Amino acid sequence: MEGPRKLALKVAERARDFLRSKFLDESYLKVVEEHKSDVSRKIDLEVEDLIIKTLREEGFKGGIVTEEKGVVGEGPPYAVVDPLDGSLNYAVGSPHWAVSVAIAEGEDFSTLVASAVCPGFGHPCYSASDKAYSGEGEVIPGAPEKVLVFYGEPEDERQSKYLVELRKLLGRPKVRVPGAIALDMVNVARGKLLALVDVRNKIRNVDVAGAYLIIKRAGVPVPEVYESFPTDEVSVVGNLFFGRDERVLSALLSSASKLGLWQGDPDNVQARAGRFLP
Amino acid sequence: MEGPRKLALKVAERARDFLRSKFLDESYLKVVEEHKSDVSRKIDLEVEDLIIKTLREEGFKGGIVTEEKGVVGEGPPYAVVDPLDGSLNYAVGSPHWAVSVAIAEGEDFSTLVASAVCPGFGHPCYSASDKAYSGEGEVIPGAPEKVLVFYGEPEDERQSKYLVELRKLLGRPKVRVPGAIALDMVNVARGKLLALVDVRNKIRNVDVAGAYLIIKRAGVPVPEVYESFPTDEVSVVGNLFFGRDERVLSALLSSASKLGLWQGDPDNVQARAGRFLP
Repeated sequence: MEGPRKLALKVAERARDFLRSKFLDESYLKVVEEHKSDVSRKIDLEVEDLIIKTLREEGFKGGIVTEEKGVVGEGPPYAVVDPLDGSLNYAVGSPHWAVSVAIAEGEDFSTLVASAVCPGFGHPCYSASDKAYSGEGEVIPGAPEKVLVFYGEPEDERQSKYLVELRKLLGRPKVRVPGAIALDMVNVARGKLLALVDVRNKIRNVDVAGAYLIIKRAGVPVPEVYESFPTDEVSVVGNLFFGRDERVLSALLSSASKLGLWQGDPDNVQARAGRFLP
Repeated sequence: MEGPRKLALKVAERARDFLRSKFLDESYLKVVEEHKSDVSRKIDLEVEDLIIKTLREEGFKGGIVTEEKGVVGEGPPYAVVDPLDGSLNYAVGSPHWAVSVAIAEGEDFSTLVASAVCPGFGHPCYSASDKAYSGEGEVIPGAPEKVLVFYGEPEDERQSKYLVELRKLLGRPKVRVPGAIALDMVNVARGKLLALVDVRNKIRNVDVAGAYLIIKRAGVPVPEVYESFPTDEVSVVGNLFFGRDERVLSALLSSASKLGLWQGDPDNVQARAGRFLP
């Protein structure tokens, strides 16, 4: 599956380079469309166009599933794309953002065959096919930091209670809300984050498809139900939980279950490699 | 005051370049000392040494007030330094971090004469003397984004209540917890953040001295009491509030007053230029 991985890398790299070249350029931040909970800017539309154009130039003939345009063309295969993960960070001037491209042979995440996530700055591109790659080498997990990335609504009592519970369960980690979930997921794959949780029920498949395959191929355990997330349309996939190892993930899920924030089976976790287990 | 500003810039840039060159290098993340609420890593100590060495090489003869070592040498003048703002981000692999260097002629923030803040990636260095600079040009405020940066303890009821209040007051902005306050302050100076609040009562003068002068010189209104923060020792300065304009800042302060999170006078705000006022 080196063809699809190289394709994903080429497309994501080109988009990342374009985004880097326009970073802090106010003229690209103009809001073009307003949606319910976010906006589309000139930069979002241009980088999406660039990705679609590059995929076609490189011979990709399937459906392109992406944030702004929905589905372009027909699949399978599908390219599941987040042209600019962390677009509000990009607008504010935080360098914490990334480009995400995934290739699936069928209609759900279990059919993902390749992906690439290119962070805006400081990192090589990460990619996956049968293995997880950091640049040209394999992803090698680093020393873990006691950090919980948590996305929740401050007004929601259940979500706030869950955050307090998690801090207790995990030994009072520092909490961050960085605002670019694909890059956060890469930092889970790299073994650096203790846990990553989003309980706002608003994450979409396009946000996470690319980083999902990288996490899985890096040997981080994931709930089995993620495998059924669709690849053939843009859709909200619900609350998301990632832990550095099986023990952390089980703690995240059973605590979420008790608060009604996780509908799946907390014991049904695929430990792909268990590399992080003590 | 171009001498001190050029000095601050030279020192901060050299430190930033060093930090960039070691980003993602696990060998520099080894914890060397454990403190009450954070740790010192090899990278923290080496970049601090580099800054002290560079200041002395460039002829700075005063006291150097910095995170790890306390005060080195005798002032006035004082160099107030945060060698690596966002050091946990740096360790995790988030590119959201910065170097901060400020020069003061006396013992408090009212005597700051120059400063530089160099974000790790994607930005020029920002600096201040009589004006605020972005690279070689002046800081020109961009279009504001509806984002609140909020640092609080999730377990603290008053702090959590304040966050919910602020979301109401400010029209439900998105909330971020990026983890590098000097870089967040630069994004306030750039006119991009609606508000920045830290109510954990743990921010120290070294964290904010450099970005404070940039915010002030960019014409953003600040509470008068910040002027009395010390420059001659490392110390916690308490809760911090920055707003894009006087109206936002007043809202932050009066709401914090009611909850007992702000001890100063909410009406006592220095509007330096009022450039952001409607």
